[in-house]
Amino acid sequence: MKLDLSLYLVTDKRNKTDDEFLEIIEEAIKGGTTVVQIREKEGETLDFYNLALKVKEITSKYNVPLIVNDRIDVALAIKSEGVHIGQTDMPADVARSLIGDEMILGVSASTVEEARKAEKDGADYIGTGAVFPTATKDDAPSITKDDLKEVTGSINIPTVAIGGITLENANELAGTGIAGISVVSAIMNSKDPKIASENLLKIYNEKIDKN
Amino acid sequence: MKLDLSLYLVTDKRNKTDDEFLEIIEEAIKGGTTVVQIREKEGETLDFYNLALKVKEITSKYNVPLIVNDRIDVALAIKSEGVHIGQTDMPADVARSLIGDEMILGVSASTVEEARKAEKDGADYIGTGAVFPTATKDDAPSITKDDLKEVTGSINIPTVAIGGITLENANELAGTGIAGISVVSAIMNSKDPKIASENLLKIYNEKIDKN
Repeated sequence: MKLDLSLYLVTDKRNKTDDEFLEIIEEAIKGGTTVVQIREKEGETLDFYNLALKVKEITSKYNVPLIVNDRIDVALAIKSEGVHIGQTDMPADVARSLIGDEMILGVSASTVEEARKAEKDGADYIGTGAVFPTATKDDAPSITKDDLKEVTGSINIPTVAIGGITLENANELAGTGIAGISVVSAIMNSKDPKIASENLLKIYNEKIDKN
Repeated sequence: MKLDLSLYLVTDKRNKTDDEFLEIIEEAIKGGTTVVQIREKEGETLDFYNLALKVKEITSKYNVPLIVNDRIDVALAIKSEGVHIGQTDMPADVARSLIGDEMILGVSASTVEEARKAEKDGADYIGTGAVFPTATKDDAPSITKDDLKEVTGSINIPTVAIGGITLENANELAGTGIAGISVVSAIMNSKDPKIASENLLKIYNEKIDKN
């Protein structure tokens, strides 16, 4: 499966029922979302496993890769296409050895040093941010457009920008060398996740990817 | 490695520095603890992974099996001897498929039905409780000595009793058919974890195992 990072949805289950959550994901994919990451930092493992199985049914139906945040055990159990780890999760080289060569490994990296280390340790892509102020992860380091450009220029694997990206500000990421935009709220909290995805993908394709 | 469940320590890192925590584990092993389980339900994966690596150094030095609670990814990453899962963690059959045939699989089971299912799903032992009131897991179901005896009699794999076991009440478990006693506070919060272990193991060997 060629990894198309153009529009990368990181999910957020908070304040949503399972059905609402799953419907948003399906609508987002219908609107063009190219990657889905599930992320549950709280709750029981069984609940995450069961939810992840349901998400996997949807992503498989549309042939969109599913990435599991942090929990490599859940990723292996549901046979997701990949895992994504942060700087306070399992070390990237250990993660790579656990998932083997075939699964996708994403790593959050906010500096050139972290990005280079992630690439060396076996990452297939990095997630970098926060490129704009964000309420979802208020402890995320914030970086400038120049920082982002420096990071993308320092590695040979693709970079997804994350953090506070909206329909209004996404075009500011033109020229930074990113391979995709990653959003949480802009889709999860949108009134129409399908249209939000269509519009975000359009901005990425027309304003960012070609610049 | 033959699994000797006689004195099974479940650790609790709360309110302890790494050094204090590791010293308690080493002293407990010197006092006769036969299995160590590490359990961290909060905090970052990287912290658990790093702590688990340090515990593994100690348990390997004394040839005592190390069991990781819930986090199969951490268990695989540090090459622990086994994993232990509760009824709200990964399903036991999925856990078994992730860890392969060689690693030890323990499952918490408080009823005959849960115990039989655990055995069928590939558990090597079950942990059953709480046999006495406990402050460590105040949401644990409590069971009587008759319940415990019914569980041990219903399966062909060994049972470890857990929950509020102390030097004062452990002898009450005689005649229940258990293969070991599991404690948290009786060792973790003891002034002398080595002597506490010696005394608990003595009670198990003299009052419970032979009855």
